[in-house]
Amino acid sequence: MGFFILEKMYDEDAMENAVTEEKSLGIVEPKRLSLAEPPNELVLESGKKLGPVTIAYETYGALNADKSNVILVAHALSGDAHAAGLLKNEKKPGWWDAMIGPGKAFDTDKYFVLCSNVIGGCKGSTGPSSINPKTKKPYGPDFPMITIKDMVEAERRLLDRLGIDKLLCVAGGSMGGMQALQWVASYPERVRSIIPMATALKHSPQQIAFSEVGRQAIVADPAWRGGNYYSHGQPERGLALARMIGHITYMSDQSMEEKFSRRLREGDHTFSFAPEFEVEGYLRHRGDSFVRRFDANSYLYITKAMDYFDLSGDKLIPVDKKVGTRFLVIAFKSDWLYPAYQSRELVDFLKTRFVDATYCEVKSTYGHDAFLLEFEEETHLITHFLAKTAQAIHNGN
Amino acid sequence: MGFFILEKMYDEDAMENAVTEEKSLGIVEPKRLSLAEPPNELVLESGKKLGPVTIAYETYGALNADKSNVILVAHALSGDAHAAGLLKNEKKPGWWDAMIGPGKAFDTDKYFVLCSNVIGGCKGSTGPSSINPKTKKPYGPDFPMITIKDMVEAERRLLDRLGIDKLLCVAGGSMGGMQALQWVASYPERVRSIIPMATALKHSPQQIAFSEVGRQAIVADPAWRGGNYYSHGQPERGLALARMIGHITYMSDQSMEEKFSRRLREGDHTFSFAPEFEVEGYLRHRGDSFVRRFDANSYLYITKAMDYFDLSGDKLIPVDKKVGTRFLVIAFKSDWLYPAYQSRELVDFLKTRFVDATYCEVKSTYGHDAFLLEFEEETHLITHFLAKTAQAIHNGN
Repeated sequence: MGFFILEKMYDEDAMENAVTEEKSLGIVEPKRLSLAEPPNELVLESGKKLGPVTIAYETYGALNADKSNVILVAHALSGDAHAAGLLKNEKKPGWWDAMIGPGKAFDTDKYFVLCSNVIGGCKGSTGPSSINPKTKKPYGPDFPMITIKDMVEAERRLLDRLGIDKLLCVAGGSMGGMQALQWVASYPERVRSIIPMATALKHSPQQIAFSEVGRQAIVADPAWRGGNYYSHGQPERGLALARMIGHITYMSDQSMEEKFSRRLREGDHTFSFAPEFEVEGYLRHRGDSFVRRFDANSYLYITKAMDYFDLSGDKLIPVDKKVGTRFLVIAFKSDWLYPAYQSRELVDFLKTRFVDATYCEVKSTYGHDAFLLEFEEETHLITHFLAKTAQAIHNGN
Repeated sequence: MGFFILEKMYDEDAMENAVTEEKSLGIVEPKRLSLAEPPNELVLESGKKLGPVTIAYETYGALNADKSNVILVAHALSGDAHAAGLLKNEKKPGWWDAMIGPGKAFDTDKYFVLCSNVIGGCKGSTGPSSINPKTKKPYGPDFPMITIKDMVEAERRLLDRLGIDKLLCVAGGSMGGMQALQWVASYPERVRSIIPMATALKHSPQQIAFSEVGRQAIVADPAWRGGNYYSHGQPERGLALARMIGHITYMSDQSMEEKFSRRLREGDHTFSFAPEFEVEGYLRHRGDSFVRRFDANSYLYITKAMDYFDLSGDKLIPVDKKVGTRFLVIAFKSDWLYPAYQSRELVDFLKTRFVDATYCEVKSTYGHDAFLLEFEEETHLITHFLAKTAQAIHNGN
């Protein structure tokens, strides 16, 4: 990782800066599809019905004749469907642009790559800020609880509508990895391979605790108004604080030391509660910019979905089930939010099911953010894994 | 650590539950002393003057004839002067009762143990909630910034007033350890030995970041009112949230797993934002009980003092200085808030100054809280260290 990326990270969210100097996809087209119109609503894991459901998505590359080259990329908590290329009149490429494009890890000369915004989100797919057809107002707290399984169900419906039966791969980091795992639990026969990165079969109490303090920061803000704030504006301070807490957990002790150490911000320094250390200014900047692009209620619903997620025990693959899905499990040494032991637990489980699984623990100092930044290592691992998976299909395995 | 302590931890703050079944000191007397009356105010590190200054303190055991048996115990962020024994009409013993008393690590049959509340605090010593003599109202945001050095300066004045010249030992964990280190930097000739535990020569950017999100939680609460809330009541939600964030960092991933795992709270479980997991209920309980005993402005001032603290480089002991103070440095393996490498950096520095230093990394799963809970191991280490230190003094070394 060079100096270039570190500098960029200071200005923008790590997710939004997965930029390399290589050839990009150029202008890409945001797409939307309406699914689950009544009476054919989405039946959620809770038993409640949700409909109509709109899914925002993007695709990169071309679908081949036998539709065998489809890769679903799943985003993390604050991500969206814009994974690669540039949207018209925008300068910032998609959040995994360094990984998706011609000649890249998810090579659009070979593969048809699809990324959709999760339900519960706020970037085009139906979520708490969407209009509730019953009231003609935003759902707010009336939006039903959703789970990772529900997100995958919406993705499955999208693929059905696009006429795609089998996925060559589902790949994603953090909550994206949870979706990849859920695909295996829900539709193992439809997934040739998955690449769960920096993720877990279930949230530990520490992970739940960090989710919960973020949620508490939001609901403690009077501007949250019980979730009915859409005609007044966001609970900005609460959401910014949630994001600040999050950012600490996305970085590592070492990456913070390398990036900020105890350097002070420019300007006059008297003892005060104004941000004095660079790390304080950085966190406040990140918090403030987040509120301009993300909905507070979506933050609540999505973190809750992550906390509910639990494919431990034999829930990923039942004891008597034979699953042909190939796994490439990637963890990062300095990731203390989703520690490598959680990935190793997954791999240990896969061994008991005789699943074809490769595990790699990438040396990185970037902490949890590493999955968005360690392109070189990831490209090496993923390129090879996808080629082997495509070959196995070709050989009829 | 047995089940007993774990159970107690659920009900109360770890600091307040360092209880063993052994003989306690019984009823102890809170004391106060007024120092630094005008024109003899305390001149703070910032150059500002503070006065009058009241210091709340307690003492345990008896001062010997040559005043050579004095141990200063320094408390952490949310601690106070009540380190051991019982206050009249209170059931809860002091925060380090398991360590201070007859036959205990800080053996009151041998030593005269003293603990005072830091300035900036809210438990009897002068702090932002104290009355500003100029306005006859609480200082609030007009309270001057204080540093760890200022806290030690107040402790030094207290000892002077009590006629105590030399300390056999200064001991403390976390911010208490910082005070111990500051004693060596400020008055090396007055300190025979120190026991800095679970502490650091300076806050890393990650430690500053956790302090900062706690402070932001408080100042983002409209009830904080720019720090002038004393006639309205505390910014309860903000302070509770700061404490919740703190508690996550005081525990370890493993201790949370052992204590809560993914267990749900009793009661009806529907998908909701109410606390569902035990860990959520625990954190909320801890946050709510904290606001009943701690002042939000004190939280701001004291965390800031910790962030400012920096005795790295040759600031602890100048390069040409010979220091006879003996060190027992204790770190805890699962403490990720004050990781053991920070203690090792201290010990490595001490070697360059030819200081008599012992280092011990205690195996514990309790995280940062370990310094308040690992009595057995601590008692073993400290008893031995104090005996050797007293012996060295007796031998004239």
